[in-house]
Amino acid sequence: MDKGIFITFEGGDGAGKSTQIGLLNDELISRGYDVLLLREPGGTAISEKIREIILDKDNSEMTYKTEAFLYAAARAQLVEEVIEPAINKGSIVICDRFVDSSMAYQSYGRELGDMVWDINRYAISGIMPELTFFLKVDPEKGRKRISGRDLDRMELASAEFHNRVFDGYLELEKLHPDRIVGIKADQPIETIATIIIDKVIDKLDNR
Amino acid sequence: MDKGIFITFEGGDGAGKSTQIGLLNDELISRGYDVLLLREPGGTAISEKIREIILDKDNSEMTYKTEAFLYAAARAQLVEEVIEPAINKGSIVICDRFVDSSMAYQSYGRELGDMVWDINRYAISGIMPELTFFLKVDPEKGRKRISGRDLDRMELASAEFHNRVFDGYLELEKLHPDRIVGIKADQPIETIATIIIDKVIDKLDNR
Repeated sequence: MDKGIFITFEGGDGAGKSTQIGLLNDELISRGYDVLLLREPGGTAISEKIREIILDKDNSEMTYKTEAFLYAAARAQLVEEVIEPAINKGSIVICDRFVDSSMAYQSYGRELGDMVWDINRYAISGIMPELTFFLKVDPEKGRKRISGRDLDRMELASAEFHNRVFDGYLELEKLHPDRIVGIKADQPIETIATIIIDKVIDKLDNR
Repeated sequence: MDKGIFITFEGGDGAGKSTQIGLLNDELISRGYDVLLLREPGGTAISEKIREIILDKDNSEMTYKTEAFLYAAARAQLVEEVIEPAINKGSIVICDRFVDSSMAYQSYGRELGDMVWDINRYAISGIMPELTFFLKVDPEKGRKRISGRDLDRMELASAEFHNRVFDGYLELEKLHPDRIVGIKADQPIETIATIIIDKVIDKLDNR
Protein backbone atom coordinates (compact mmCIF):
# COMPACT_ATOMS: atom_id res chain seq x y z
CA MET A 1 0.00 0.00 0.00
CA ASP A 2 1.21 3.50 -0.85
CA LYS A 3 1.68 5.95 1.97
CA GLY A 4 -0.90 8.74 1.81
CA ILE A 5 -0.07 12.33 1.06
CA PHE A 6 -0.88 15.54 2.84
CA ILE A 7 -2.09 18.57 0.87
CA THR A 8 -3.03 21.97 2.29
CA PHE A 9 -4.84 25.03 0.98
CA GLU A 10 -3.86 28.50 2.11
CA GLY A 11 -4.79 32.09 1.44
CA GLY A 12 -6.81 34.97 2.78
CA ASP A 13 -10.57 35.05 3.22
CA GLY A 14 -12.59 34.99 0.03
CA ALA A 15 -9.85 33.39 -2.07
CA GLY A 16 -12.04 30.45 -3.05
CA LYS A 17 -10.31 27.73 -1.00
CA SER A 18 -13.56 25.87 -0.18
CA THR A 19 -14.65 25.75 -3.81
CA GLN A 20 -11.31 24.39 -4.97
CA ILE A 21 -11.11 21.85 -2.16
CA GLY A 22 -14.56 20.57 -3.14
CA LEU A 23 -13.58 20.24 -6.80
CA LEU A 24 -10.30 18.48 -5.98
CA ASN A 25 -12.12 16.11 -3.64
CA ASP A 26 -14.69 15.21 -6.34
CA GLU A 27 -11.96 14.61 -8.90
CA LEU A 28 -9.87 12.41 -6.61
CA ILE A 29 -12.87 10.37 -5.48
CA SER A 30 -13.92 9.83 -9.12
CA ARG A 31 -10.43 8.45 -9.71
CA GLY A 32 -10.84 6.00 -6.83
CA TYR A 33 -8.67 7.64 -4.19
CA ASP A 34 -9.44 7.59 -0.48
CA VAL A 35 -9.70 11.27 0.53
CA LEU A 36 -10.03 12.89 3.94
CA LEU A 37 -11.12 16.55 4.08
CA LEU A 38 -10.21 18.58 7.16
CA ARG A 39 -10.26 22.20 8.23
CA GLU A 40 -8.26 24.20 10.73
CA PRO A 41 -8.83 25.04 13.45
CA GLY A 42 -11.01 21.96 14.02
CA GLY A 43 -11.29 18.40 12.76
CA THR A 44 -11.44 16.69 16.16
CA ALA A 45 -13.92 17.09 19.01
CA ILE A 46 -11.31 18.88 21.15
CA SER A 47 -10.02 21.04 18.28
CA GLU A 48 -13.58 22.16 17.49
CA LYS A 49 -14.02 23.28 21.11
CA ILE A 50 -10.77 25.25 20.81
CA ARG A 51 -12.02 26.69 17.49
CA GLU A 52 -15.08 28.07 19.25
CA ILE A 53 -12.90 30.01 21.69
CA ILE A 54 -10.58 31.30 18.93
CA LEU A 55 -13.29 32.56 16.59
CA ASP A 56 -15.87 33.80 19.12
CA LYS A 57 -16.36 37.53 18.50
CA ASP A 58 -16.98 38.01 22.24
CA ASN A 59 -13.36 37.09 22.98
CA SER A 60 -12.15 40.46 21.69
CA GLU A 61 -9.66 40.83 24.57
CA MET A 62 -7.71 37.71 23.51
CA THR A 63 -3.97 38.41 23.42
CA TYR A 64 -2.05 37.57 20.25
CA LYS A 65 0.09 35.03 22.10
CA THR A 66 -2.99 33.28 23.47
CA GLU A 67 -4.39 33.12 19.94
CA ALA A 68 -1.15 31.56 18.64
CA PHE A 69 -1.13 28.98 21.45
CA LEU A 70 -4.76 28.03 20.83
CA TYR A 71 -4.14 27.43 17.12
CA ALA A 72 -1.11 25.31 18.05
CA ALA A 73 -3.21 23.34 20.58
CA ALA A 74 -5.92 22.59 18.03
CA ARG A 75 -3.26 21.63 15.46
CA ALA A 76 -1.36 19.29 17.81
CA GLN A 77 -4.59 17.41 18.49
CA LEU A 78 -5.51 17.19 14.79
CA VAL A 79 -2.06 15.98 13.73
CA GLU A 80 -1.77 13.25 16.34
CA GLU A 81 -5.39 12.08 16.38
CA VAL A 82 -6.28 12.34 12.67
CA ILE A 83 -3.69 13.48 10.10
CA GLU A 84 -0.79 11.19 10.98
CA PRO A 85 -2.93 8.01 11.26
CA ALA A 86 -4.73 8.84 7.97
CA ILE A 87 -1.48 9.38 6.06
CA ASN A 88 -0.11 6.14 7.49
CA LYS A 89 -3.10 4.18 6.24
CA GLY A 90 -2.71 5.60 2.72
CA SER A 91 -5.31 8.39 2.55
CA ILE A 92 -4.99 11.67 0.71
CA VAL A 93 -5.44 14.22 3.47
CA ILE A 94 -6.60 17.67 2.32
CA CYS A 95 -6.62 20.38 4.96
CA ASP A 96 -8.15 23.84 4.65
CA ARG A 97 -5.34 25.81 6.37
CA PHE A 98 -2.40 24.42 8.36
CA VAL A 99 0.82 25.74 9.87
CA ASP A 100 1.37 28.28 7.06
CA SER A 101 -1.78 30.02 8.30
CA SER A 102 -0.21 30.43 11.73
CA MET A 103 2.91 31.83 10.11
CA ALA A 104 0.94 34.25 7.92
CA TYR A 105 -1.67 35.31 10.49
CA GLN A 106 0.23 35.20 13.78
CA SER A 107 3.91 35.53 12.87
CA TYR A 108 3.44 38.16 10.14
CA GLY A 109 -0.11 39.47 10.74
CA ARG A 110 0.09 39.72 14.55
CA GLU A 111 3.83 40.39 14.29
CA LEU A 112 4.71 37.66 16.82
CA GLY A 113 7.80 36.74 14.79
CA ASP A 114 9.86 33.67 15.77
CA MET A 115 7.47 32.57 18.51
CA VAL A 116 5.07 31.08 15.99
CA TRP A 117 7.45 28.60 14.41
CA ASP A 118 9.15 27.91 17.75
CA ILE A 119 5.89 26.63 19.22
CA ASN A 120 4.44 25.08 16.06
CA ARG A 121 7.45 22.88 15.38
CA TYR A 122 6.18 20.93 18.39
CA ALA A 123 2.54 21.03 17.27
CA ILE A 124 3.17 19.45 13.87
CA SER A 125 5.26 16.52 15.17
CA GLY A 126 7.27 16.49 11.95
CA ILE A 127 4.19 16.34 9.71
CA MET A 128 4.38 18.93 6.90
CA PRO A 129 2.27 19.05 3.73
CA GLU A 130 3.95 17.80 0.57
CA LEU A 131 1.92 20.25 -1.50
CA THR A 132 0.36 23.57 -0.51
CA PHE A 133 -1.88 25.60 -2.79
CA PHE A 134 -1.79 29.30 -1.98
CA LEU A 135 -4.77 31.00 -3.60
CA LYS A 136 -3.76 34.60 -4.09
CA VAL A 137 -6.39 37.25 -3.88
CA ASP A 138 -5.79 40.92 -3.21
CA PRO A 139 -6.71 41.30 0.50
CA GLU A 140 -9.20 44.09 -0.18
CA LYS A 141 -10.98 42.15 -2.91
CA GLY A 142 -11.07 39.02 -0.76
CA ARG A 143 -12.67 40.92 2.06
CA LYS A 144 -15.30 42.34 -0.26
CA ARG A 145 -16.17 38.81 -1.36
CA ILE A 146 -16.93 37.71 2.22
CA SER A 147 -18.66 40.92 3.29
CA GLY A 148 -22.09 39.26 3.20
CA ARG A 149 -21.12 36.61 5.77
CA ASP A 150 -21.39 36.75 9.56
CA LEU A 151 -17.71 37.43 10.19
CA ASP A 152 -15.69 35.76 12.99
CA ARG A 153 -13.07 37.32 15.29
CA MET A 154 -10.21 36.77 12.82
CA GLU A 155 -12.15 37.98 9.79
CA LEU A 156 -13.09 41.13 11.70
CA ALA A 157 -9.43 42.13 12.24
CA SER A 158 -8.18 45.33 10.57
CA ALA A 159 -7.33 45.81 6.89
CA GLU A 160 -3.70 46.52 7.92
CA PHE A 161 -3.60 43.12 9.62
CA HIS A 162 -4.94 41.36 6.52
CA ASN A 163 -2.40 43.17 4.35
CA ARG A 164 0.42 41.91 6.58
CA VAL A 165 -1.06 38.38 6.35
CA PHE A 166 -0.99 38.56 2.54
CA ASP A 167 2.60 39.82 2.53
CA GLY A 168 3.45 36.98 4.92
CA TYR A 169 2.03 34.43 2.50
CA LEU A 170 4.09 35.94 -0.34
CA GLU A 171 7.18 35.60 1.85
CA LEU A 172 6.37 31.95 2.65
CA GLU A 173 5.88 31.24 -1.05
CA LYS A 174 9.38 32.57 -1.70
CA LEU A 175 10.86 30.57 1.18
CA HIS A 176 9.27 27.24 0.14
CA PRO A 177 9.05 27.26 -3.67
CA ASP A 178 9.12 23.45 -3.93
CA ARG A 179 6.13 22.99 -1.67
CA ILE A 180 3.96 26.09 -2.06
CA VAL A 181 2.16 26.57 -5.38
CA GLY A 182 0.89 30.13 -5.67
CA ILE A 183 -2.17 30.52 -7.93
CA LYS A 184 -3.84 33.79 -8.88
CA ALA A 185 -7.40 33.49 -7.63
CA ASP A 186 -8.91 35.88 -10.22
CA GLN A 187 -8.82 33.20 -12.93
CA PRO A 188 -11.85 31.08 -13.90
CA ILE A 189 -12.66 28.42 -11.32
CA GLU A 190 -12.10 25.57 -13.81
CA THR A 191 -8.69 26.95 -14.81
CA ILE A 192 -7.58 26.95 -11.19
CA ALA A 193 -9.04 23.49 -10.63
CA THR A 194 -7.04 22.12 -13.58
CA ILE A 195 -3.77 23.58 -12.30
CA ILE A 196 -4.43 21.98 -8.91
CA ILE A 197 -5.45 18.52 -10.12
CA ASP A 198 -2.45 18.35 -12.49
CA LYS A 199 -0.06 19.10 -9.63
CA VAL A 200 -1.75 16.59 -7.33
CA ILE A 201 -1.80 13.79 -9.91
CA ASP A 202 1.86 14.46 -10.69
CA LYS A 203 2.67 14.18 -7.00
CA LEU A 204 0.62 10.99 -6.62
CA ASP A 205 2.25 9.38 -9.65
CA ASN A 206 5.73 10.16 -8.34
CA ARG A 207 5.29 8.86 -4.82
CA MET B 1 4.70 53.55 45.08
CA ASP B 2 6.42 50.19 45.48
CA LYS B 3 6.21 47.74 42.63
CA GLY B 4 4.07 44.75 43.54
CA ILE B 5 5.39 41.25 43.95
CA PHE B 6 4.37 37.95 42.45
CA ILE B 7 4.10 34.86 44.66
CA THR B 8 3.08 31.37 43.54
CA PHE B 9 2.04 28.18 45.29
CA GLU B 10 2.94 24.80 43.87
CA GLY B 11 2.58 21.14 44.73
CA GLY B 12 0.50 18.08 44.05
CA ASP B 13 -3.18 17.64 44.77
CA GLY B 14 -4.12 17.57 48.45
CA ALA B 15 -1.00 19.44 49.59
CA GLY B 16 -3.05 22.18 51.25
CA LYS B 17 -2.29 25.03 48.82
CA SER B 18 -5.77 26.57 49.06
CA THR B 19 -5.69 26.63 52.86
CA GLN B 20 -2.29 28.31 52.95
CA ILE B 21 -3.21 30.82 50.25
CA GLY B 22 -6.29 31.78 52.27
CA LEU B 23 -4.24 32.26 55.45
CA LEU B 24 -1.57 34.30 53.67
CA ASN B 25 -4.23 36.47 52.06
CA ASP B 26 -5.89 37.16 55.44
CA GLU B 27 -2.57 38.04 57.04
CA LEU B 28 -1.50 40.40 54.25
CA ILE B 29 -4.87 42.13 54.14
CA SER B 30 -4.78 42.61 57.93
CA ARG B 31 -1.40 44.32 57.43
CA GLY B 32 -2.93 46.67 54.87
CA TYR B 33 -1.54 45.22 51.66
CA ASP B 34 -3.41 45.14 48.38
CA VAL B 35 -3.65 41.44 47.44
CA LEU B 36 -4.88 39.76 44.28
CA LEU B 37 -5.62 36.01 44.42
CA LEU B 38 -5.54 34.03 41.18
CA ARG B 39 -5.58 30.41 40.12
CA GLU B 40 -4.27 28.58 37.08
CA PRO B 41 -5.59 27.64 34.66
CA GLY B 42 -8.08 30.50 34.84
CA GLY B 43 -8.28 34.03 36.18
CA THR B 44 -9.64 35.70 33.01
CA ALA B 45 -12.84 35.02 31.07
CA ILE B 46 -10.86 33.45 28.20
CA SER B 47 -8.57 31.46 30.50
CA GLU B 48 -11.58 30.03 32.35
CA LYS B 49 -13.03 28.82 29.01
CA ILE B 50 -9.68 27.16 28.27
CA ARG B 51 -9.70 25.67 31.79
CA GLU B 52 -13.02 23.98 31.05
CA ILE B 53 -11.54 22.21 28.02
CA ILE B 54 -8.38 21.18 29.90
CA LEU B 55 -10.10 19.71 32.94
CA ASP B 56 -13.22 18.20 31.32
CA LYS B 57 -13.16 14.45 32.00
CA ASP B 58 -14.86 13.87 28.64
CA ASN B 59 -11.73 15.09 26.83
CA SER B 60 -9.89 11.89 27.62
CA GLU B 61 -8.38 11.69 24.13
CA MET B 62 -6.49 14.99 24.57
CA THR B 63 -2.86 14.63 23.50
CA TYR B 64 -0.15 15.69 25.92
CA LYS B 65 1.08 18.38 23.55
CA THR B 66 -2.42 19.83 23.22
CA GLU B 67 -2.66 19.91 27.01
CA ALA B 68 0.66 21.76 27.27
CA PHE B 69 -0.42 24.31 24.62
CA LEU B 70 -3.74 24.94 26.36
CA TYR B 71 -2.05 25.63 29.70
CA ALA B 72 0.33 28.01 27.90
CA ALA B 73 -2.61 29.74 26.18
CA ALA B 74 -4.45 30.28 29.46
CA ARG B 75 -1.23 31.52 31.08
CA ALA B 76 -0.37 33.97 28.30
CA GLN B 77 -3.80 35.55 28.68
CA LEU B 78 -3.56 35.74 32.49
CA VAL B 79 -0.06 37.26 32.45
CA GLU B 80 -0.85 39.98 29.93
CA GLU B 81 -4.40 40.80 31.01
CA VAL B 82 -4.07 40.53 34.81
CA ILE B 83 -0.71 39.66 36.44
CA GLU B 84 1.56 42.20 34.74
CA PRO B 85 -0.84 45.16 35.19
CA ALA B 86 -1.45 44.21 38.85
CA ILE B 87 2.26 43.99 39.66
CA ASN B 88 2.83 47.33 37.93
CA LYS B 89 0.21 49.01 40.08
CA GLY B 90 1.80 47.68 43.28
CA SER B 91 -0.37 44.67 44.21
CA ILE B 92 0.79 41.47 45.81
CA VAL B 93 -0.27 38.85 43.28
CA ILE B 94 -0.69 35.32 44.67
CA CYS B 95 -1.30 32.60 42.13
CA ASP B 96 -2.33 29.01 42.85
CA ARG B 97 -0.02 27.29 40.31
CA PHE B 98 2.02 28.92 37.52
CA VAL B 99 4.72 27.87 35.08
CA ASP B 100 6.34 25.42 37.55
CA SER B 101 3.12 23.39 37.32
CA SER B 102 3.58 23.08 33.56
CA MET B 103 7.18 21.99 34.12
CA ALA B 104 6.21 19.43 36.78
CA TYR B 105 3.03 18.09 35.12
CA GLN B 106 3.81 18.34 31.41
CA SER B 107 7.62 18.36 31.12
CA TYR B 108 8.24 15.72 33.83
CA GLY B 109 4.81 14.08 34.36
CA ARG B 110 3.84 13.81 30.67
CA GLU B 111 7.53 13.47 29.73
CA LEU B 112 7.33 16.24 27.11
CA GLY B 113 10.81 17.47 28.10
CA ASP B 114 12.17 20.70 26.58
CA MET B 115 8.97 21.54 24.73
CA VAL B 116 7.35 22.84 27.89
CA TRP B 117 9.85 25.56 28.69
CA ASP B 118 10.38 26.34 24.99
CA ILE B 119 6.73 27.30 24.63
CA ASN B 120 6.18 28.77 28.10
CA ARG B 121 9.04 31.23 27.85
CA TYR B 122 6.73 33.02 25.40
CA ALA B 123 3.64 32.60 27.59
CA ILE B 124 5.16 34.28 30.66
CA SER B 125 6.47 37.37 28.81
CA GLY B 126 9.37 37.62 31.26
CA ILE B 127 7.13 37.52 34.34
CA MET B 128 8.40 35.00 36.91
CA PRO B 129 7.39 34.73 40.57
CA GLU B 130 9.84 36.18 43.08
CA LEU B 131 8.80 33.58 45.65
CA THR B 132 7.30 30.12 45.13
CA PHE B 133 6.05 27.92 47.96
CA PHE B 134 6.23 24.23 47.10
CA LEU B 135 4.06 22.30 49.54
CA LYS B 136 5.49 18.80 49.63
CA VAL B 137 3.16 15.92 50.19
CA ASP B 138 3.86 12.31 49.31
CA PRO B 139 1.87 11.81 46.07
CA GLU B 140 -0.01 8.82 47.43
CA LYS B 141 -1.04 10.62 50.64
CA GLY B 142 -2.07 13.69 48.65
CA ARG B 143 -4.29 11.62 46.42
CA LYS B 144 -5.94 10.00 49.43
CA ARG B 145 -6.75 13.45 50.79
CA ILE B 146 -8.66 14.42 47.64
CA SER B 147 -10.34 11.05 47.09
CA GLY B 148 -13.72 12.37 48.29
CA ARG B 149 -13.81 15.08 45.58
CA ASP B 150 -15.23 14.89 42.08
CA LEU B 151 -11.88 14.53 40.31
CA ASP B 152 -10.99 16.33 37.06
CA ARG B 153 -9.07 14.99 34.04
CA MET B 154 -5.66 15.83 35.53
CA GLU B 155 -6.46 14.49 38.99
CA LEU B 156 -7.65 11.25 37.40
CA ALA B 157 -4.26 10.57 35.75
CA SER B 158 -2.27 7.52 36.90
CA ALA B 159 -0.28 7.18 40.12
CA GLU B 160 2.91 6.79 38.02
CA PHE B 161 2.18 10.16 36.42
CA HIS B 162 1.70 11.83 39.80
CA ASN B 163 4.94 10.28 41.06
CA ARG B 164 6.82 11.77 38.08
CA VAL B 165 5.17 15.15 38.81
CA PHE B 166 6.43 15.04 42.41
CA ASP B 167 9.94 14.10 41.30
CA GLY B 168 9.75 16.97 38.82
CA TYR B 169 8.94 19.41 41.58
CA LEU B 170 11.88 18.14 43.63
CA GLU B 171 14.10 18.72 40.59
CA LEU B 172 12.77 22.27 40.14
CA GLU B 173 13.37 22.99 43.82
CA LYS B 174 17.03 21.99 43.34
CA LEU B 175 17.36 24.07 40.18
CA HIS B 176 15.87 27.25 41.69
CA PRO B 177 16.83 27.27 45.39
CA ASP B 178 16.64 31.07 45.67
CA ARG B 179 13.07 31.22 44.46
CA ILE B 180 11.41 27.95 45.45
CA VAL B 181 10.78 27.34 49.15
CA GLY B 182 9.97 23.68 49.78
CA ILE B 183 7.82 23.05 52.86
CA LYS B 184 6.80 19.67 54.21
CA ALA B 185 3.03 19.62 54.12
CA ASP B 186 2.63 17.16 57.01
CA GLN B 187 3.30 19.86 59.59
CA PRO B 188 0.56 21.70 61.51
CA ILE B 189 -1.25 24.25 59.34
CA GLU B 190 -0.20 27.16 61.58
CA THR B 191 3.47 26.11 61.46
CA ILE B 192 3.40 26.18 57.67
CA ALA B 193 1.53 29.49 57.64
CA THR B 194 4.20 31.06 59.86
CA ILE B 195 7.04 29.87 57.60
CA ILE B 196 5.22 31.38 54.61
CA ILE B 197 4.32 34.74 56.11
CA ASP B 198 7.88 35.21 57.46
CA LYS B 199 9.32 34.63 53.99
CA VAL B 200 6.81 36.96 52.37
CA ILE B 201 7.30 39.78 54.88
CA ASP B 202 11.06 39.46 54.49
CA LYS B 203 10.64 39.75 50.71
CA LEU B 204 8.32 42.75 51.03
CA ASP B 205 10.67 44.53 53.46
CA ASN B 206 13.61 44.04 51.10
CA ARG B 207 11.98 45.24 47.91
